[in-house]
Amino acid sequence: MGRLFIAVIGDAHCDEATYRLAEAVGRELARRGAVVVCGGLTGVMEAACKGAQSAGGLTVGILPGTERQDANPYVDVPIVTGMDQARNVIVVRSAQAVVAVGGWYGTLSEIGHALKLGIPVVGLETWELAKGGQAVPAIVVARTSAEAAQKAIALAGQRR
Amino acid sequence: MGRLFIAVIGDAHCDEATYRLAEAVGRELARRGAVVVCGGLTGVMEAACKGAQSAGGLTVGILPGTERQDANPYVDVPIVTGMDQARNVIVVRSAQAVVAVGGWYGTLSEIGHALKLGIPVVGLETWELAKGGQAVPAIVVARTSAEAAQKAIALAGQRR
Amino acid sequence: MGRLFIAVIGDAHCDEATYRLAEAVGRELARRGAVVVCGGLTGVMEAACKGAQSAGGLTVGILPGTERQDANPYVDVPIVTGMDQARNVIVVRSAQAVVAVGGWYGTLSEIGHALKLGIPVVGLETWELAKGGQAVPAIVVARTSAEAAQKAIALAGQRR
Amino acid sequence: MGRLFIAVIGDAHCDEATYRLAEAVGRELARRGAVVVCGGLTGVMEAACKGAQSAGGLTVGILPGTERQDANPYVDVPIVTGMDQARNVIVVRSAQAVVAVGGWYGTLSEIGHALKLGIPVVGLETWELAKGGQAVPAIVVARTSAEAAQKAIALAGQRR
Repeated sequence: MGRLFIAVIGDAHCDEATYRLAEAVGRELARRGAVVVCGGLTGVMEAACKGAQSAGGLTVGILPGTERQDANPYVDVPIVTGMDQARNVIVVRSAQAVVAVGGWYGTLSEIGHALKLGIPVVGLETWELAKGGQAVPAIVVARTSAEAAQKAIALAGQRR
Repeated sequence: MGRLFIAVIGDAHCDEATYRLAEAVGRELARRGAVVVCGGLTGVMEAACKGAQSAGGLTVGILPGTERQDANPYVDVPIVTGMDQARNVIVVRSAQAVVAVGGWYGTLSEIGHALKLGIPVVGLETWELAKGGQAVPAIVVARTSAEAAQKAIALAGQRR
Repeated sequence: MGRLFIAVIGDAHCDEATYRLAEAVGRELARRGAVVVCGGLTGVMEAACKGAQSAGGLTVGILPGTERQDANPYVDVPIVTGMDQARNVIVVRSAQAVVAVGGWYGTLSEIGHALKLGIPVVGLETWELAKGGQAVPAIVVARTSAEAAQKAIALAGQRR
Repeated sequence: MGRLFIAVIGDAHCDEATYRLAEAVGRELARRGAVVVCGGLTGVMEAACKGAQSAGGLTVGILPGTERQDANPYVDVPIVTGMDQARNVIVVRSAQAVVAVGGWYGTLSEIGHALKLGIPVVGLETWELAKGGQAVPAIVVARTSAEAAQKAIALAGQRR
């Protein structure tokens, strides 16, 4: 329980540049001793797990479906929810900070849940939020994988 | 099952103008025969139920907590989930279209879930989404309660 | 909110005698003014809804899948959870008492959840529980549909 | 993913003999290389984790509440669901076999979910099921912790 748990969220389908970015985020998090939590599927989730394992890290995949075989091959601990999108809540809740890498509407729901719960969100090329024409700067912007990992771990540590 | 189910989402704490707007949305939906689904609590949720009941409509409140007494007094059918934020998924999934009235991060999570599921979202003074500096116009903007109800019902009808 | 909500639980596949029994339970509950809550599918769930509607009652179906079309034709208010078996918890939690009609392992899980939550369970030809060779009489036994409805409503009323 | 995941289920409040039994089950499972999954709280859950860690095993605690601090001190991977009893489904679903040690109604719900899903259940001094006066021998009875661990691992292996 002394370890930090950081979620990496993003799309199950992503281009190669985003995959490499998510892989680097996973690696940077694991290097710093964090456990990587994710939705357990392909794309950004797979990349983050792959990166984390390459640095000797532990990876947790919280799956939406009913089969443990849905987990990508880099998941150490598959959690089988059978709850479809409701598993998004568990992904963010099981983390002390969240890194969003790109992402579409599923990622947006996770960002919403995290911010509602007061869990810090660090963003790499992800959603920008506004209301009434004014930016709502709730997502901490990072420009590199290392910066994202550093910020997520610093913010998570404050909430320990 | 012939009736349309429309969710009204928004904050549990809102100012009077937003309360009146949500009440009008509920009324306009019920006038057009729709069942109003919501999160069952105070603020925008209560206002929508109050408005719907004033027009003879049926109201469903999908509660996050463990007690049916948490429901606002205008909920006809309280659903007690005990699942905290995960109930947000059920709110949007149980609707054929969603009207967001104002709202903060919980509402943002619901907008994300709805868009992910392909459920149309109509927005009244709610979140504006962008990625990479470009607006993502996924939320159908409305300016009045009547326009929001009309648009939600029209969009829901296409998905019947 | 003045109305009582009573869940009827049982198998999605049942013989004709069980179907008729569940239909009678639904009818007896609705005659006494209760809203019938169920899992929304076929078998016992459908029968209970059909019986309740025949007596002018309101029916709620809390669906495990992702499609409202999964609801049996006698469901007035379909709740779409997309949470598979986890919806069982919501079925019992949304009720003030539960009537089990026959049923297999899904029903057993619902009985367990209800008893854990302190929600009374009335049983018609359902599970018998024991530990260490001794019967655990946690389920209130009924022999007829009318007796089941009466007992469920009496027990629910005490918890109002 | 080559490792087997076995759930140990039982009450959060148990006597010392049951605690020691659950601890031995956790130890026997970990000795055989299995990851122990549980509900993450006190009593049988804590004992199983303690036993597993004492044999160098990995432990996963799927928590009902909203706080990771709810996890007992022997949980390596806390999963924070915030879904109260619905987390019972996730506990059994994330396992390839389940060992029930004693237990009351929450455990009964988990046994029901597991059997419904076709996940083998091994029982140590737990529920006995019957219908219509006839025993339903769905729970594989074990008399010692070692026998329970062996049977659970053998049954889980067949489902791999």
